Amino acid sequence: MNTMSSFRDMIDAIAERGRRLIAPSPPAQKDAGAETLVLRCEELLSSKGEASGLALAQDILSGWARLNDQEQREFMCALLERFGAGAAHLGQAIKNYSENPNADTLSALHDAAEPRRQELIRRLNAAPQGTASLVRMREVLLHLLPSMPELAAVDADFAHLFASWFNRGFLQLRSIDWMTPAHILEKIIHYEAVHAIGDWNELRSRLAPPDRRCFAFFHPQLADEPLIFVEVALTRSIPDRIGTLLDDARAPIAPGDADTAVFYSISNCQQGLRGISFGNFLIKQVVEDLRREQPGLKNFVTLSPVPGFARWLKAATDETEVLEFDRLKAVLDGDGWSQDEALVLEVQPLLLRAAAQYFLNARTTDGRPVDPVARFHLGNGARLERLDFLGNVSARALRESHCLMVNYLYKLDDIERNHEAYAERGEVVASSDVRKWLSAQSFKKPAKPREKTHA
Amino acid sequence: MNTMSSFRDMIDAIAERGRRLIAPSPPAQKDAGAETLVLRCEELLSSKGEASGLALAQDILSGWARLNDQEQREFMCALLERFGAGAAHLGQAIKNYSENPNADTLSALHDAAEPRRQELIRRLNAAPQGTASLVRMREVLLHLLPSMPELAAVDADFAHLFASWFNRGFLQLRSIDWMTPAHILEKIIHYEAVHAIGDWNELRSRLAPPDRRCFAFFHPQLADEPLIFVEVALTRSIPDRIGTLLDDARAPIAPGDADTAVFYSISNCQQGLRGISFGNFLIKQVVEDLRREQPGLKNFVTLSPVPGFARWLKAATDETEVLEFDRLKAVLDGDGWSQDEALVLEVQPLLLRAAAQYFLNARTTDGRPVDPVARFHLGNGARLERLDFLGNVSARALRESHCLMVNYLYKLDDIERNHEAYAERGEVVASSDVRKWLSAQSFKKPAKPREKTHA
Amino acid sequence: MNTMSSFRDMIDAIAERGRRLIAPSPPAQKDAGAETLVLRCEELLSSKGEASGLALAQDILSGWARLNDQEQREFMCALLERFGAGAAHLGQAIKNYSENPNADTLSALHDAAEPRRQELIRRLNAAPQGTASLVRMREVLLHLLPSMPELAAVDADFAHLFASWFNRGFLQLRSIDWMTPAHILEKIIHYEAVHAIGDWNELRSRLAPPDRRCFAFFHPQLADEPLIFVEVALTRSIPDRIGTLLDDARAPIAPGDADTAVFYSISNCQQGLRGISFGNFLIKQVVEDLRREQPGLKNFVTLSPVPGFARWLKAATDETEVLEFDRLKAVLDGDGWSQDEALVLEVQPLLLRAAAQYFLNARTTDGRPVDPVARFHLGNGARLERLDFLGNVSARALRESHCLMVNYLYKLDDIERNHEAYAERGEVVASSDVRKWLSAQSFKKPAKPREKTHA
Amino acid sequence: MNTMSSFRDMIDAIAERGRRLIAPSPPAQKDAGAETLVLRCEELLSSKGEASGLALAQDILSGWARLNDQEQREFMCALLERFGAGAAHLGQAIKNYSENPNADTLSALHDAAEPRRQELIRRLNAAPQGTASLVRMREVLLHLLPSMPELAAVDADFAHLFASWFNRGFLQLRSIDWMTPAHILEKIIHYEAVHAIGDWNELRSRLAPPDRRCFAFFHPQLADEPLIFVEVALTRSIPDRIGTLLDDARAPIAPGDADTAVFYSISNCQQGLRGISFGNFLIKQVVEDLRREQPGLKNFVTLSPVPGFARWLKAATDETEVLEFDRLKAVLDGDGWSQDEALVLEVQPLLLRAAAQYFLNARTTDGRPVDPVARFHLGNGARLERLDFLGNVSARALRESHCLMVNYLYKLDDIERNHEAYAERGEVVASSDVRKWLSAQSFKKPAKPREKTHA
Repeated sequence: MNTMSSFRDMIDAIAERGRRLIAPSPPAQKDAGAETLVLRCEELLSSKGEASGLALAQDILSGWARLNDQEQREFMCALLERFGAGAAHLGQAIKNYSENPNADTLSALHDAAEPRRQELIRRLNAAPQGTASLVRMREVLLHLLPSMPELAAVDADFAHLFASWFNRGFLQLRSIDWMTPAHILEKIIHYEAVHAIGDWNELRSRLAPPDRRCFAFFHPQLADEPLIFVEVALTRSIPDRIGTLLDDARAPIAPGDADTAVFYSISNCQQGLRGISFGNFLIKQVVEDLRREQPGLKNFVTLSPVPGFARWLKAATDETEVLEFDRLKAVLDGDGWSQDEALVLEVQPLLLRAAAQYFLNARTTDGRPVDPVARFHLGNGARLERLDFLGNVSARALRESHCLMVNYLYKLDDIERNHEAYAERGEVVASSDVRKWLSAQSFKKPAKPREKTHA
Repeated sequence: MNTMSSFRDMIDAIAERGRRLIAPSPPAQKDAGAETLVLRCEELLSSKGEASGLALAQDILSGWARLNDQEQREFMCALLERFGAGAAHLGQAIKNYSENPNADTLSALHDAAEPRRQELIRRLNAAPQGTASLVRMREVLLHLLPSMPELAAVDADFAHLFASWFNRGFLQLRSIDWMTPAHILEKIIHYEAVHAIGDWNELRSRLAPPDRRCFAFFHPQLADEPLIFVEVALTRSIPDRIGTLLDDARAPIAPGDADTAVFYSISNCQQGLRGISFGNFLIKQVVEDLRREQPGLKNFVTLSPVPGFARWLKAATDETEVLEFDRLKAVLDGDGWSQDEALVLEVQPLLLRAAAQYFLNARTTDGRPVDPVARFHLGNGARLERLDFLGNVSARALRESHCLMVNYLYKLDDIERNHEAYAERGEVVASSDVRKWLSAQSFKKPAKPREKTHA
Repeated sequence: MNTMSSFRDMIDAIAERGRRLIAPSPPAQKDAGAETLVLRCEELLSSKGEASGLALAQDILSGWARLNDQEQREFMCALLERFGAGAAHLGQAIKNYSENPNADTLSALHDAAEPRRQELIRRLNAAPQGTASLVRMREVLLHLLPSMPELAAVDADFAHLFASWFNRGFLQLRSIDWMTPAHILEKIIHYEAVHAIGDWNELRSRLAPPDRRCFAFFHPQLADEPLIFVEVALTRSIPDRIGTLLDDARAPIAPGDADTAVFYSISNCQQGLRGISFGNFLIKQVVEDLRREQPGLKNFVTLSPVPGFARWLKAATDETEVLEFDRLKAVLDGDGWSQDEALVLEVQPLLLRAAAQYFLNARTTDGRPVDPVARFHLGNGARLERLDFLGNVSARALRESHCLMVNYLYKLDDIERNHEAYAERGEVVASSDVRKWLSAQSFKKPAKPREKTHA
Repeated sequence: MNTMSSFRDMIDAIAERGRRLIAPSPPAQKDAGAETLVLRCEELLSSKGEASGLALAQDILSGWARLNDQEQREFMCALLERFGAGAAHLGQAIKNYSENPNADTLSALHDAAEPRRQELIRRLNAAPQGTASLVRMREVLLHLLPSMPELAAVDADFAHLFASWFNRGFLQLRSIDWMTPAHILEKIIHYEAVHAIGDWNELRSRLAPPDRRCFAFFHPQLADEPLIFVEVALTRSIPDRIGTLLDDARAPIAPGDADTAVFYSISNCQQGLRGISFGNFLIKQVVEDLRREQPGLKNFVTLSPVPGFARWLKAATDETEVLEFDRLKAVLDGDGWSQDEALVLEVQPLLLRAAAQYFLNARTTDGRPVDPVARFHLGNGARLERLDFLGNVSARALRESHCLMVNYLYKLDDIERNHEAYAERGEVVASSDVRKWLSAQSFKKPAKPREKTHA
């Protein structure tokens, strides 16, 4: 830490000295907009001095942060149009290679085909806090992308460089608990994306009890900024309801008594790093760490939301009518079905059959499972283990998934096989407990499930 | 640290699981040579599973370490010939781009022009200790290069990736002193390349006294392996002899009494990182740190060897005869001139005039100064400050530089200007004290330099 | 930390082994009350084995924690009556010394005169968490003391040992800020005794801004338990109102712009350590640290409450009538004087004259200043610098001090002299600004103090 | 660490301010000898100011360090004679107590019976580096004690206070290995008292191999100064020769393969702390730590010297003649018996029988075992496990113990029982393997022990 901060001071000092050498921006120009910055970018690309380069990079990044929305858009367009590969230069490289294909002409071709903005981004990255600034810049870029799809090429260059800078060899796993510094903890409150943390007391109940854990990835260039974190509960048996799990009044258990680790919330923190995947690795490392710490743990599961279910169901049609979608939707559309014992009993098999369709048979246009959370965990090699009817009765869950939650199971010995089944054959690996809801068997009315309705 | 080691354990564990999935190498094959490894490299490039990829990468790297010299050469040739860009694929990409030059075809062309070994090296890097293994691999490669110049293309790919992985944002400056862990200190003894450290007592005398400092760069992926280090002496005035500086019997001074910081030894530690430059940045950061710690410091200089001087002088001719090279060489060729007061007096002006020629006028075929140490410091923006006659009377220095040493001065406000003068115009920035030896003035016999000869 | 925890585990393990050797307490006896514990204390005093001693000590302490109030009282009485010095033994030691006064008989006399409970407390302290348990035991003892003054002798033994265990060489000063672990911060909220901290947001506003500091003393045996802490504000000029100082909406200043460090809250955390003084040393160390960090700081002052003023004033009589106490009390007794501009104007000189009497002339029966906060700071060598009329308008301050606050000034070069003036001559060192309220001068009606009433 | 150093700076600063207030010592007086210091000690005892007290304490301690031997002796005598209890004061306290024995008069008596030097030592301890200075002062005192036994009373006061300051709750166990800072390691070389460490390479071979460990106790007031350390070898089976254990050429084993931890060297570092016992606790904590780290460890033993054996044997007489002491001594007195196979065969049973006498039957005049190392380990609760004939063939071991070594076994479940057997009944707990050498059985000539003589 000491090292890092003094390092930053030093870069600042070097940049400061360099600043005296670069042509001073007239005060009026300082905020003169995208065009000025673009010229400075050209200057940076042709700069040879280290200090003046640092100073320029710092100026460009802080200037960029002061641009208004329209100017930032213009800047992005300039990155696309004016910092691609040089056409003439590339043409010559192609010609040279075609006439004389060897290692040298190939290498020259490769260089010539690289968009100039890649080198630009690399040089900006050398500025103090450069990485953090570039992550914020890509945040804006991702925001523009839907309306300006042509910027995808620019984004690809950001993504390519970020993938290299944030490769997993540089990620640091840290345990987050009630002894973690407060300035980190307030970011956990801020970034929690699955089950919101209302205040510090709620945070304490997530971190302090002996049967709770939290882990986050950090990166040396974004000190004290978590990239992703996962919250874990140690339990006896696999839980089927988030309410019980997060109940403040529950009695914590001794960690040694737990047989199950439940990943009940995974949150990405940096929007600007979208597509740079950390979650897969985070879960696997946490599984290994927990196994070592608590040898009694047998199950590693999630308790996950099903964010796409309600939307899918709304649009789904049931041509065979055997699924009784109409009746199901009718009940679900009514108010308060989840408080009505009779309706609950009726809905349960219908909804679980529909959910099995959703997970196992439904596909997006590009052939993948519809549910984004499912895609994440299946892609990691997890197995869809159980459907948890009425797993989450919050308003949001009622709206998004008709209160459904699911467990994904991480079984280390199967992860690789599951991953390959999914990645190569698009197969959704699911337990027989889930798959049974596809079979004829499931269409019988279930016996009254006493324990659930009496709960 | 804890984090890192547990991380490594975890990668090991994941790789171990993956190992069960990759086709087992028959025991006989295990050390079956370069060809087997090359096939595994192809397998690694086409692998999709993360765990099996890790296991493969680990296998390849440890297999490679067991190859004999001939097999390692074969492996390098295979990297050149079989892991370049795919010609057909590239041809198609060129065609597509030429017919329809847009961001997508450009990006595809850029990808197609990238030698496949770049991705291979990236994947090998994911193995536990991957970076360290690849650094050692390049060490071998650099060793082969003089006799197999065609491998330069392979080396360029290593260098390109290393430059990215070892970019300065990741470097950590650490102070090395007598409180540093012994396993680091033994590496300082091992890697010291300028003034050898005989044993731990000598090391202690370089690190423990209050007027000594040492700083090194480290990298998170090569934990506890210094990349480069610099040894510093705090002195009153700029020293002109290494013997006095390193004299065990000298009385240390209080740091607050020093006005000069002398960088008297800079050693690169990792041969496999040749060409990835750290020294420039190291010196500047150390200057900034020392200035903050000891505001009384006014001069930041080196006391540097002149390793190319004797070789150059041997070959040099003096057509004008004004330089008296013949007389100079005659004396220097004799034994023991440096112990003979009369000869010393005679040699001094001749040798310093020759040295001024060597530094200021002599050039390599590509137009750069002949002395490699000069190139390093001038390239950093330092100024050639003073020629130190009889600065080092060791056998090696006598042989390499006729006992000459020099001081390079790092003046922060001039560094950038000096650097640009050197980088853009090839100018050697030198003090008037050095330049005077070029002028007619210098050809007069100097008055008997009492203090030197009586020393 | 690692060290400490493993150490504790180890003591636990040793005690556990010892437990098997001590006579098992029959389950019924386990909570059988004070008498059982007293017997175990005798056993502990005669025990020779280390492990069985540890186990006994641990048992006694945890048994003690389970006693009810009446039993704890009985236990304390037993400490007084049954663990004093042995009368017969002491009589013999007196006889031996009187007959033959030498170093040996003296030493034996010293030992014999030591109450046996001192050794008992020392042995209890060896148990895991022993120190913390004993601190809690003394908390109870202090609570009993007013109604059972004879226990003062027991308390003196606790105090004697605590003074030795908590001697300042063992205290660790730590800076508390927004990067401090949350489990420490929640104790800061809990222990704050002067200006209550409502929630984590309020805590953040005390710790995170660049012009705020907090420092605490810790002790290795009470890990993560602050002993005392002080909150500091960096300001321009000496503040006279706590409201402005703690205003959430204020704009923080750059630390380098501050000329004054204000100690606005000092809280002791461990009631069981009452009388073991840390505050004096804490303030001096913080002053030294801040001076080093911020050389621009010129004034080190408190902004302190005057908790005894209203009570004193109520009882005070003004025989000369020159002080107009009657009129003053009449106004202060009325409601809302502090909101009435005219009354404020009238009250100000009367109240400040009374305050000057309170601080400078009034004395307790044992000759010390009446105000406890004044005794603390004057005893530390501070000077009473200024009376701050309407410094705190909270309900509590209105009640305790008619809204008066004061500044004590810590001037390092005068601290020792001030301390000695106070300690040896009972002198209250005060600025002329305070002393003027004693003089005839002060009895003139002040001109309308515009800026205050218009504030 | 940071904390500690800044703390020390601060104490220095406070003492510095205090210095201006104490009467300046005239330069001539500065080294004026013991009498001056004694006067300053009186001044310190009557001082009330904190800063002036600190300054005085610092002056006394540094003045003391400059005294010559004779003056230091005088100073110690003054501590004895002039800083005991005040006779008149004590007489009055005795009278008061005798007339009215209550808690107050008892407490006053206890205080009056305390030698004034105890408070003096306490106040000296508050100086920067005070504890370290006092430890050195006691070193001198212990050196004087044999010739000035009357100083024992002074030493008792030092010992009493040191026992309190160095109580085990403050000790920190640290692992020492090849990653330990060099300034600590050089102290390990310096303090090693059993098997000398020749140089850093030898140190490395004691610390770096995976089957070696070293642990030391540290104290916060003596930062970076080990108090005691133990060197440990992990082995398969219990070793009987130190030569094999320390052989540089041996192949290290994997720690997981070891079943035995051998404590082969325990060194006290601070002579001034003699009698303050750390070893007992150190061994037990290390046993616990190693058990946790390496669950495969079954035996915890020493490989110990027998330093008193040869001296004892020389003086021992064998009245029954059954022990054949005369023959044994005759052989041992000759040169080179240990190289003569026949003599070795003859000596072995005779020497082991004598050793059994030495350990099991011989006693000092105060009834304790003769061997000091035996007293230490038996007092810790270890068992004498095995006699190792020819365990150490160094010149010193030949001279002190006729090459005999022994193993003491630490079995955690028996430690407390063994300790009590030894402490209360003077019993030497030994294995049957040792005890058999006392029995008639042992007086038969053993069969030729092939493996040993062929070794």
